[in-house]
Amino acid sequence: MTMSDLPSHDRYLRALRCEPADTTPVWVMRQAGRYLPEYRATRERAGSFMGLAQNPEYACEVTLQPLQRFELDAAILFSDILTIPDAMGLGLSFAAGEGPQFARPVRHASDVARLAVPDMDGELRYVMDALRLIRRELDGRVPLIGFSGSPWTLACYMVEGRGSKDFATLKTMCWSQPKLAHQLLDTLARAVASYLIAQAAAGAQALMIFDTWGGLLGPAPFREFSLRYMTQIVARLQADPASRELPVTLFSKGATAHLAALADSGCAGLGVDWTIDLADARAAVNGRVALQGNLDPAILRATPEVIRREVRAVMDSYGNHPGHVFNLGHGITPDIDPEHVKVLVDEVHAYGRQLREQ
Amino acid sequence: MTMSDLPSHDRYLRALRCEPADTTPVWVMRQAGRYLPEYRATRERAGSFMGLAQNPEYACEVTLQPLQRFELDAAILFSDILTIPDAMGLGLSFAAGEGPQFARPVRHASDVARLAVPDMDGELRYVMDALRLIRRELDGRVPLIGFSGSPWTLACYMVEGRGSKDFATLKTMCWSQPKLAHQLLDTLARAVASYLIAQAAAGAQALMIFDTWGGLLGPAPFREFSLRYMTQIVARLQADPASRELPVTLFSKGATAHLAALADSGCAGLGVDWTIDLADARAAVNGRVALQGNLDPAILRATPEVIRREVRAVMDSYGNHPGHVFNLGHGITPDIDPEHVKVLVDEVHAYGRQLREQ
Repeated sequence: MTMSDLPSHDRYLRALRCEPADTTPVWVMRQAGRYLPEYRATRERAGSFMGLAQNPEYACEVTLQPLQRFELDAAILFSDILTIPDAMGLGLSFAAGEGPQFARPVRHASDVARLAVPDMDGELRYVMDALRLIRRELDGRVPLIGFSGSPWTLACYMVEGRGSKDFATLKTMCWSQPKLAHQLLDTLARAVASYLIAQAAAGAQALMIFDTWGGLLGPAPFREFSLRYMTQIVARLQADPASRELPVTLFSKGATAHLAALADSGCAGLGVDWTIDLADARAAVNGRVALQGNLDPAILRATPEVIRREVRAVMDSYGNHPGHVFNLGHGITPDIDPEHVKVLVDEVHAYGRQLREQ
Repeated sequence: MTMSDLPSHDRYLRALRCEPADTTPVWVMRQAGRYLPEYRATRERAGSFMGLAQNPEYACEVTLQPLQRFELDAAILFSDILTIPDAMGLGLSFAAGEGPQFARPVRHASDVARLAVPDMDGELRYVMDALRLIRRELDGRVPLIGFSGSPWTLACYMVEGRGSKDFATLKTMCWSQPKLAHQLLDTLARAVASYLIAQAAAGAQALMIFDTWGGLLGPAPFREFSLRYMTQIVARLQADPASRELPVTLFSKGATAHLAALADSGCAGLGVDWTIDLADARAAVNGRVALQGNLDPAILRATPEVIRREVRAVMDSYGNHPGHVFNLGHGITPDIDPEHVKVLVDEVHAYGRQLREQ
């Protein structure tokens, strides 16, 4: 079997196993998002962001929309990273232009004690229903990625009660009441593990943990308050029959200095933002895990010619090795022309084939 | 002469030359700031932030305030990083809670062509007057630091017209109209060099360039659009009799992956944020430059006991080598208790002496 005989529908899973594939797989963080007019139309019908995310039919519809336009190598469940705290009863809402807010933030020992792992067949059943529906609609075309926020990132929003530049309220809890912070993070780690196992049982074929705010921590607190709990989750996923075979990708944005530590977590892949060359990231993890990334999302605002050049630069930096999942270094922004995403996806596949022929 | 006979007033300059000193010098980014009630009182009298910054008497008063409370080893001119674009006629204002805004952002080739290096004895004379006054009032107690924003960081605000998460407008100019971006950055580099030379002539004894948004760039664009111009500025400063002897510190926040490249700029010191251990940062620059940093500012919200422990952890990470200027990894925030700053400053000096006796 030559390279070009390899099936295209499992490029993404092959890359995460660091196995050869016919070309480099690509998907785009937030690929089902506001840059697509068809997404905005469905969002309009749903009435609100949470109305969209909590309705399995709508969630399925927007999950599949980008696949109808672009030759993406994976679908990712349309959902939010804050579904778990919402299911814990914290009252999630999205004020226009304000980002997420919780009506009942977690501040005191009694708030933490009250938190329980949500029922995956109860409050979070809508997520599993969406996965089952998407998986059926996908019909094996490409793998389906399930995901969750990391315990640290969930805790950032739960304790602050909203978005923040530095999430100093949770940090203060970590320095001043470390036992309480660990109690909160431990509950969240158990909830995230159960959530991802349930997603696997409902049809997810790969899993991602978004540690959006891990990069706000220095090396020692990163290991203590973020990485430790992601490592626990990976171990639990590997111990459960439903999720055992699923590759897990961790993405700690801004955690360039922590890549080697992250690679020790037992994950299959690491997301990498655009502030480091993939060659250096690969050296840091010593080829032990696959890497996902890492084009600067702002480059999608440039001309098709520049986009193609920068796509090739990212791929050249990774080199002709297995284990590269092409992606942006952060989510795509609403201002991007969908035609530019097509340019990106097609260039990844074309240049990936060219690289393999060298 | 033993270590303890070394004069204390030039600890900061000795550390930047990587020479031994009696203990580790410390200053705090934004040490003249809103966390001090006496600052808020002067700010109230001045009527507005720019009214404060542009009045040499007020600027001198707030520059000296933290030195009356804490045994800081350097004073830093109270000013704003956006004085140059303001002097270029872009109309800087600070809306309450909104951050900086320019009435006339730079978007088109004609806007860039119109920009000229401001007159250091004209529009920017108030900065030089403030430096002369502060230097006189300091009377040799500690060195006075002058500063500027980096060309990249100034351009971020000038092109976007205001603060932003990603400054995508300037990035788009860089990808799509690189010549125009370089023309803008070149003008800014000449302006920043003239500005810092004038600051040296007016009494500054060390210089800092704040590249607050350099970390938004990937490695290749960082070198092309940010580092290149800072390197030009350092070369110009070293060629001018007024500034030749002054150590320059560059601080590119979030540029953990670029430390080795930054150390090639000819600077004396590099600011380091808290996302990397100083031991790793020191290894990255191979001991070629002094390092400034890198306590997480959020730690100042913790108890005195935790602050002391974390101060010692930062100093242990640097080790008993010359060339460490203790500081936060980013500016101090308004919510900090001034007594906690005293705890930090005193612990740096006490533990620095202890380290040197080992």
